[in-house]
Amino acid sequence: MNDNNNVNNQEIQQLIWHDVQKIRSAGPLVHNITNYVVMNTTANALLAVGASPLMAHAIEEAADITGLSQALVLNIGTLSAPWIDAMLLSGKEAKRRNLPVVLDPVGCGATRFRTDTAHRLIQEIQPTVIRGNASEIRALVIAGSGSKGVDSLHTPDEVLNDAVALSLSVGCVVSVSGPVDLIVEGNTVLRVANGTPMMTRVTGMGCTASALTGAFLAVNQSALQAARNAMAVMGIAGEMAGQQATGPGSFQVAFLDALYGMTQAQLAQLSMI
Amino acid sequence: MNDNNNVNNQEIQQLIWHDVQKIRSAGPLVHNITNYVVMNTTANALLAVGASPLMAHAIEEAADITGLSQALVLNIGTLSAPWIDAMLLSGKEAKRRNLPVVLDPVGCGATRFRTDTAHRLIQEIQPTVIRGNASEIRALVIAGSGSKGVDSLHTPDEVLNDAVALSLSVGCVVSVSGPVDLIVEGNTVLRVANGTPMMTRVTGMGCTASALTGAFLAVNQSALQAARNAMAVMGIAGEMAGQQATGPGSFQVAFLDALYGMTQAQLAQLSMI
Amino acid sequence: MNDNNNVNNQEIQQLIWHDVQKIRSAGPLVHNITNYVVMNTTANALLAVGASPLMAHAIEEAADITGLSQALVLNIGTLSAPWIDAMLLSGKEAKRRNLPVVLDPVGCGATRFRTDTAHRLIQEIQPTVIRGNASEIRALVIAGSGSKGVDSLHTPDEVLNDAVALSLSVGCVVSVSGPVDLIVEGNTVLRVANGTPMMTRVTGMGCTASALTGAFLAVNQSALQAARNAMAVMGIAGEMAGQQATGPGSFQVAFLDALYGMTQAQLAQLSMI
Repeated sequence: MNDNNNVNNQEIQQLIWHDVQKIRSAGPLVHNITNYVVMNTTANALLAVGASPLMAHAIEEAADITGLSQALVLNIGTLSAPWIDAMLLSGKEAKRRNLPVVLDPVGCGATRFRTDTAHRLIQEIQPTVIRGNASEIRALVIAGSGSKGVDSLHTPDEVLNDAVALSLSVGCVVSVSGPVDLIVEGNTVLRVANGTPMMTRVTGMGCTASALTGAFLAVNQSALQAARNAMAVMGIAGEMAGQQATGPGSFQVAFLDALYGMTQAQLAQLSMI
Repeated sequence: MNDNNNVNNQEIQQLIWHDVQKIRSAGPLVHNITNYVVMNTTANALLAVGASPLMAHAIEEAADITGLSQALVLNIGTLSAPWIDAMLLSGKEAKRRNLPVVLDPVGCGATRFRTDTAHRLIQEIQPTVIRGNASEIRALVIAGSGSKGVDSLHTPDEVLNDAVALSLSVGCVVSVSGPVDLIVEGNTVLRVANGTPMMTRVTGMGCTASALTGAFLAVNQSALQAARNAMAVMGIAGEMAGQQATGPGSFQVAFLDALYGMTQAQLAQLSMI
Repeated sequence: MNDNNNVNNQEIQQLIWHDVQKIRSAGPLVHNITNYVVMNTTANALLAVGASPLMAHAIEEAADITGLSQALVLNIGTLSAPWIDAMLLSGKEAKRRNLPVVLDPVGCGATRFRTDTAHRLIQEIQPTVIRGNASEIRALVIAGSGSKGVDSLHTPDEVLNDAVALSLSVGCVVSVSGPVDLIVEGNTVLRVANGTPMMTRVTGMGCTASALTGAFLAVNQSALQAARNAMAVMGIAGEMAGQQATGPGSFQVAFLDALYGMTQAQLAQLSMI
């Protein structure tokens, strides 16, 4: 527990817990057009937290599926041209229906194809939340800043100015994951200090954070709070799992169990806002 | 154990166990053209039960792979146009060779694309077994009945008449999963009451049931019995896993271990036919 | 421990451990164009051993991603035409940059499409290491030798002559997995006797061996040694996992934990070179 655990933090914990309960009772449908590597794990994370995942990418049905859903998550991790078309169709349908959209610009900066696609999706869809690691967020703002594949070369605080600039220019929330997550809306900056280093040894934990952000957006009108609450629950489940795990295999198992079984007391005890 | 555990049930348990032993000794090849979300988990379930999974979807080889196999499983969970072509090629090859075909109409009713594709596959291939949840089965019979994404809004018994109608019109077995599974062939209705609610918190358990149905069809000439036996083993493994699991992560691990290690005594003790 | 555990073996163990430490400290990027079934598990195995996985298959970025990487792994397990194009683009970029390339000819021999594609990739790319099971290696050398799907009908020693012929004709290392792995470079033959039968009940363990081979090639100039060291670490992690597992579910979990936590003492105690 950090030394900021004052009344304000207790209120925040109440807000987070309120969202968790709403997800568990409402079971919001979250439409994911995401990468092959994480489809199974993000579907399972959404089910564990109480949401209902849908994965569908065919242009023949993408918009229809979005229309059934309460949130849309777009993830460019294993992109190819037909998938971009589906993302655009679903993204526009979501905007038409005022549904929240999360964009995870996986590997943005690593190749021109990814950077260009992320820019195009942002321009045509204006996502509600852009959630990425620090290098990905910087690459969206500073052309040619590069990245080491899909891993980050920066901490969130090193790219704070970029996150603020991105939030202001797009008019969206920017959620930057790292040892301390930043959630930025214009000049408002929230921080979440939960999590454990083992999360970097499991593939797709960032993608899972984006998927959970979709579930929280489905039950919370404030995109800033929803994005923060998702990162807090993500990090707290990570810490709970880290206490039991002996490696990244047992970590994944314990992480899903923690998302599923998280109590208000565990949330209150661990949250580092 | 339910109160029907009479001599008749002991005979059924013997039949189920006989199939399990045959799968373990013969290791039948099961060709799956299935969705991205569950490819890994259904391959692992087939391996755990003793079968040999093959995933292949290219039109250049789909029919060849089917020709090597003892059963074909078609699953429309993450459909796109080229995959439909492969399903048709493989389905027709299976029919030409008198191989059993399972169709899992995932999300049927959710979009016109899925419903139309399911109807087309049924018409052109006439599957041996259609296995889905109650909403999916209803959507195959009643146009516009809808569904909540990939989850069911109905119990199997609520759609019994639909299942019978579908079985009679297609001339196939219809296997409806839910708290109590129904396996229907014309006016014959079998029930399996195994399973645990945790199975709904793990992605692709229905898809796993379809894959296992393929393995049982490979070793049992009676499609009705094979479909029933698959659902029983599925549900019993689920109950064995549920006794150990603390959440959906540990459940998945224990489920595969249970499929792999299931003994005749465990099967007899738990089966709820 | 085998009876060859002499000074020579201790030297080999030092070499293996040296590679493990280099992977853990350098975190080499490994670009995978691989099959849908194993994307998640091979990414997690690479992360567990200390490498950094990248999965990308779009022709628009495949060569760019290869250019960022320290090794390329091509796996034809769920092939389709666009993926072959990406494999050729990435393979040629790797050769241009002198990056090591692993080819896993999954299911080679099962269909003409797979056999032809494997031959084409070998001819146009000349991989550094071809890693497959015995049936796949034989199918690359003897036309029409067939296979039972993706499982092997032969032991590595039964196809030793084929492996030597393939190595000599292509000018590459051939790594044949089985109860005793063979690693062949021309007439030099190394053996690794680690592993456990449970590895055949988990999907994609061969694919994982290929991915790990990529990571070892990234830190070791000798392709022969890198391929041998990868198979040793693979098998040792398998044995460590086998000691804890009660089935293929718990095996997978323990396998990742073992890759992640393997110590020099465990490596020395278990290695069967």
